[in-house]
Amino acid sequence: MSQRIGRSTFRLDHSPSAAAYAAAGGKKEGEGPLGKNFDLLYDDASLGEKTWEQAESRLQKDTVSKALEKGRLAPEDIDLIFAGDLLNQCTGSTYGLRELGIPFFGLYGACSTMAESLCAASLFVDSGLAQRALAVTSSHFCSAERQFRFPLEYGGQRPPTAQWTATASGAVVVEQTGKPPFLREVCIGTIVDLGITDANNMGAAMAPAAATTIKTFLQDSGTRPEDYDLILTGDLGKVGKTLLLELLQKDGIDISKQHDDCGLMLFDLESQDVHAGGSGCGCSASVLCSYILPRIAQGVYHDVLFAATGALMSPTLVQQGESIPGICHLLHISSSQNG
Amino acid sequence: MSQRIGRSTFRLDHSPSAAAYAAAGGKKEGEGPLGKNFDLLYDDASLGEKTWEQAESRLQKDTVSKALEKGRLAPEDIDLIFAGDLLNQCTGSTYGLRELGIPFFGLYGACSTMAESLCAASLFVDSGLAQRALAVTSSHFCSAERQFRFPLEYGGQRPPTAQWTATASGAVVVEQTGKPPFLREVCIGTIVDLGITDANNMGAAMAPAAATTIKTFLQDSGTRPEDYDLILTGDLGKVGKTLLLELLQKDGIDISKQHDDCGLMLFDLESQDVHAGGSGCGCSASVLCSYILPRIAQGVYHDVLFAATGALMSPTLVQQGESIPGICHLLHISSSQNG
Repeated sequence: MSQRIGRSTFRLDHSPSAAAYAAAGGKKEGEGPLGKNFDLLYDDASLGEKTWEQAESRLQKDTVSKALEKGRLAPEDIDLIFAGDLLNQCTGSTYGLRELGIPFFGLYGACSTMAESLCAASLFVDSGLAQRALAVTSSHFCSAERQFRFPLEYGGQRPPTAQWTATASGAVVVEQTGKPPFLREVCIGTIVDLGITDANNMGAAMAPAAATTIKTFLQDSGTRPEDYDLILTGDLGKVGKTLLLELLQKDGIDISKQHDDCGLMLFDLESQDVHAGGSGCGCSASVLCSYILPRIAQGVYHDVLFAATGALMSPTLVQQGESIPGICHLLHISSSQNG
Repeated sequence: MSQRIGRSTFRLDHSPSAAAYAAAGGKKEGEGPLGKNFDLLYDDASLGEKTWEQAESRLQKDTVSKALEKGRLAPEDIDLIFAGDLLNQCTGSTYGLRELGIPFFGLYGACSTMAESLCAASLFVDSGLAQRALAVTSSHFCSAERQFRFPLEYGGQRPPTAQWTATASGAVVVEQTGKPPFLREVCIGTIVDLGITDANNMGAAMAPAAATTIKTFLQDSGTRPEDYDLILTGDLGKVGKTLLLELLQKDGIDISKQHDDCGLMLFDLESQDVHAGGSGCGCSASVLCSYILPRIAQGVYHDVLFAATGALMSPTLVQQGESIPGICHLLHISSSQNG
């Protein structure tokens, strides 16, 4: 039974596990520092489909299929799937997963979606609402550029604060198996908006939400940054990372030794021309599923905070002069159980 | 503790209540058959804001505030809010609710969102994951036309199968109060796609999902249509209603005596020029909160199935020739508790 240890922080007393997981990526992700850890890599960004949107749907579907295969599971073995993505009307998920016949709970958390879906899946399994739940998300560079900025054909220039949307997906089956990685606590975030209006500086818009959620979780759980091997944000990139560390320092919290960011891990910023770092739902999802979860399973990491961040804006509202609200949901993932 | 009585059907053993609720609408909704039941009505579609998107955000915020006021609650009293809407990136919710400081769980279920958010809130409260959870959604005719079809200024013609997106919102606070309306069972739907490609015929695209979820729920709960006063779909409209009844008839299920549709209740189809009926997230949400929940509280209705339906398409994918997947989530709401 999950216990509330804060307004929206929960200790998962049965410590469900990330029982099976898979990560997929494109060519650039394959060439990055974590490339060799991916389960699936596609050299062709179209994945053999006719449109970028269909390519993203295919990417998400393939990632779920791979996670099921690795867990020796069929779609019928999954009680509920929690899914979302960045495309308008979340069609990466709805078209990608429509053939599976799994009860579907659609989410929208922008780039925080992997943490949001994994929080939900963990709570459902820990509370006995599902035996097995699946959390998945995706993003695709080409579909995201068309939707949020300019079609690729336009050849728009990107400012140095801009981030590179990952063509990637990650999927996790949550189930009580008694084996690591264990999902021990989750924290549902609150919308934070400090007034950033630059849609090319998402890291700065999301950092305040990350600071709020990390601070809330440390308070609710009675833990300190030193209790974790790694405090991992979603896709703040270079600009957002600096701001996050500064914001937490002001509250007397120093996570500089433990902090890393999926957007800075997925690509080599020097050689891969991604400006301030990677971003997109698939960025944190694929870093989690390719690199982090296997290392927790092996005991390389013992305790990791996974805090994926999302910018809850729309291009329409930013064009109307609105600022960009951010959100951050968090999970504590560990090599040992609650007990 | 919520008990699974099917793959994704749950009996809420503690029968949480719709403890406080509010409905808001625009001028057309106020002039409709249910107009006098609304808590808030706005003669000016702009709600005093500069853009239609900001108007929708304001609509959702005001509805939540009204529900809190009716429940004599402050935002701090709510542990979690489950919210979503039809706007790209769900900004009706994120901008509308960002100032409340309530932990935020963003959903996307197209027009099924009121049932999706209410299912989640009910499960969280029944399982002890939240003491009070709030479910809310909204839609706005002008922002929806701009996003999904044409800007109003274009003056596009609407075919007879088209539906009219309601300018409306509904919000429900879920809490265990021991008073009706009680939330007794929930059923999370599965994506169903029978190949409809006409974005002006959403009712037909959603009817198969409604049929699937209603059939699944009746099987899982061991009940028959006669056990309910009302089986209420979200916004199938005239075309979708006929198809739903036919589809269920083929499976030997006759709901013709119990069935009604929020899209057919919100407007007078003859006099209000809404073609096949109302639609939009706010349609079923406002019908539920203005008309249905009060009548269950008064004992006019004893047992109602609320089955909101969503078309999980995007204009982009429909332009690419894709068909329209549908989904339907369902709740059994009653004047008596599970016992």
